[in-house]
Amino acid sequence: MHTEIIAVGTEILLGQIINTNAAFVARRLAGMGIDVYHQTVVGDNSQRLTQAIKIAAKRNDLIILMGGLGPTKDDLTKQTVANFLKKKLIEDADAMKKIIHYYAASEKEMTANNRLQAQYIAGSVPLKNETGFAVGEYYQNDHGCDFLLLPGPPNELKPMFANFAQPLLYKKYHNNHLLFSRVLRFFGIGESLLATKIEDLIDKQSNPTIAPYAKTSEVTLRLTASAVDEYEAKQLLDETEEKICSRVGEYMYGYGDENSLVKVVVQKLLQAGLSITAAESLTAGAFQAALGDVPGVSSVFPGGFVTYANSAKSGLLDIPARIIQTNGVVSEETAKWMARKSKEKMETDIGISFTGVAGPDALEGKEAGTVWIGLAFKDRPVQAKLYHFARQRSLVRERSVLTGLDWIRRELIK
Amino acid sequence: MHTEIIAVGTEILLGQIINTNAAFVARRLAGMGIDVYHQTVVGDNSQRLTQAIKIAAKRNDLIILMGGLGPTKDDLTKQTVANFLKKKLIEDADAMKKIIHYYAASEKEMTANNRLQAQYIAGSVPLKNETGFAVGEYYQNDHGCDFLLLPGPPNELKPMFANFAQPLLYKKYHNNHLLFSRVLRFFGIGESLLATKIEDLIDKQSNPTIAPYAKTSEVTLRLTASAVDEYEAKQLLDETEEKICSRVGEYMYGYGDENSLVKVVVQKLLQAGLSITAAESLTAGAFQAALGDVPGVSSVFPGGFVTYANSAKSGLLDIPARIIQTNGVVSEETAKWMARKSKEKMETDIGISFTGVAGPDALEGKEAGTVWIGLAFKDRPVQAKLYHFARQRSLVRERSVLTGLDWIRRELIK
Repeated sequence: MHTEIIAVGTEILLGQIINTNAAFVARRLAGMGIDVYHQTVVGDNSQRLTQAIKIAAKRNDLIILMGGLGPTKDDLTKQTVANFLKKKLIEDADAMKKIIHYYAASEKEMTANNRLQAQYIAGSVPLKNETGFAVGEYYQNDHGCDFLLLPGPPNELKPMFANFAQPLLYKKYHNNHLLFSRVLRFFGIGESLLATKIEDLIDKQSNPTIAPYAKTSEVTLRLTASAVDEYEAKQLLDETEEKICSRVGEYMYGYGDENSLVKVVVQKLLQAGLSITAAESLTAGAFQAALGDVPGVSSVFPGGFVTYANSAKSGLLDIPARIIQTNGVVSEETAKWMARKSKEKMETDIGISFTGVAGPDALEGKEAGTVWIGLAFKDRPVQAKLYHFARQRSLVRERSVLTGLDWIRRELIK
Repeated sequence: MHTEIIAVGTEILLGQIINTNAAFVARRLAGMGIDVYHQTVVGDNSQRLTQAIKIAAKRNDLIILMGGLGPTKDDLTKQTVANFLKKKLIEDADAMKKIIHYYAASEKEMTANNRLQAQYIAGSVPLKNETGFAVGEYYQNDHGCDFLLLPGPPNELKPMFANFAQPLLYKKYHNNHLLFSRVLRFFGIGESLLATKIEDLIDKQSNPTIAPYAKTSEVTLRLTASAVDEYEAKQLLDETEEKICSRVGEYMYGYGDENSLVKVVVQKLLQAGLSITAAESLTAGAFQAALGDVPGVSSVFPGGFVTYANSAKSGLLDIPARIIQTNGVVSEETAKWMARKSKEKMETDIGISFTGVAGPDALEGKEAGTVWIGLAFKDRPVQAKLYHFARQRSLVRERSVLTGLDWIRRELIK
């Protein structure tokens, strides 16, 4: 079951818009066990579109075309596919009614090409457009490749795909087995080291498959099991997860596509009923802003301090000036004082601090990327740890925030 | 001059990530007058990648491959291209040094496959990776198609393309005329309104061309002039910019691709020698974190307050509890007090405050997206303004930060 997604639109070719539709459709197809081996983009050009369809028809069972169903001159997807299939276009009565009704109500002028949006290729199933005018269609082909045509605007494509196309595809292409995915999320271990540590599993395992993926500061593993039902899938996924965790479990912080380290930490804080504050120097509020992005955090996060200059560290946190003078602003002692004092002042259970060299220049003879994080966690002794991060300013700061979150996570599960 | 962009990565095929790289590169190429007629995505599969290269090589002068240069087993772009070209891989000494140095400094384990990242195809020009380890390369082919290989992570691809690939492409593909671009940046006006206001200019103008582009919260116009030298280009660009600014100049805050509202504001603060602080409720530190992202800001930004809970507003800022009780936390009065008190406490020239409803739930009967921003600017009367932003939590917060920055910008140029 090979599928190709073809997006039609010169504005995508020119980079004026990003092809988010392809990702949306691909993810849905993957969830249904339909393999996408190629994605293509061509402009609003009948000749090159025909060429792309010819290439795709040779290597696929299903071609999904997105875009080019609108009323303007450069919309020619369905005409081109109709030509390729040697079929005529016919009019969908319901869609036509909707268009006529709209123009009557809006007092805008209806032009001849507006009718085009209601047309579909003879022999296909027209797909209703709940949020626009152009009908989609699904053409089942006994002599070759199937075609699915979807509109370009994401707010039209998404409901049409989910509500009308997906059930039809499922019906036709799905065999006995279903696909189940589980995403494991890791922080504090690089992609290559993680991949090396579980190389044999990745190589040997075919069900579930294991796919690593790295973002700026974290790595995820997507396990995908093929099974007859959820129960069987769960067993397969549990087994593989256990093997992985026996090697790199300490770095795993959570599950799921839409998850993040800060969400996991805030959730654990809420569960434990522990409040938190921060004193931020080089991160300048980024740690607290990350907390603030999670709904519901207000019950454990009253606020905190941005102490960028030394004067603010003394003034806002009452850290004796001599502490900073003696030890330096980027030091274990200063980090500890910042964490302890922020916790005291805000009367929270946890106080965390960040002081370091964001760069590009060195500070106090310490090179960019040098960061001390301090942590006052309940009544445990106040600690501070030294880190050396990559030397790009925004990365140093992002990495500091995530490392602080991960430290708190580790303390919370102790 | 036909070009094809091929993104390599199973995670794109599966829809796990969106192919933003294609849009970035396509836009840059369009600006250089290099035509992209096809974009393709294939997975991390040597056979299908070879097939895609064969198809692309028949219809293009230049193939740009993105992704698959990393250290894991499924990274095989350069090996596949090398096979296609019947060339060997050789090691880039500088890149290798960087990798060895990194692993020595970080005390992480270096694996054999990390070396792969420093290799490039014999006969090509290696392209330096300033933000990562995998070298890129540009292969000029006397007997066929040229190849450009770029890394997949956007933070590596973008600087490599802009700083190293683009000049090489320009040199080879550009004729007598040169292209000169100027980017104008706008905040506070939507793309469609901006485009409507200068519609006739966009339609009539062919040199320079005017290309609008919208991001989440701002719009840019890229003017691109074709000219024999910089002097002629400057005249053409100046003329068009003047016409645009006579209509929408009040929304324009700066120039350039790598610019941002916060950079412009910090620069103006530094020039004027004015210091700033903030008291942030719903933004929870995001405004100050934005300031902290600009190198050199420390001389005008001592730090400030994150006052998420009411207790923090009273405790940290000494705002009388009755002010908040009487007026509500999301109110003109509270916003003004927060701005004034933060300025007083930090002894700065400017104090700005943010209080509002980030959502998803309403607060004090005010719906999500309701935001008051307060501004105490030097000895001008303290003001507060009410905004209603889109109702998505992260957008409300981002939009609040940018709106605050723009307000300060406007005060600074008064």
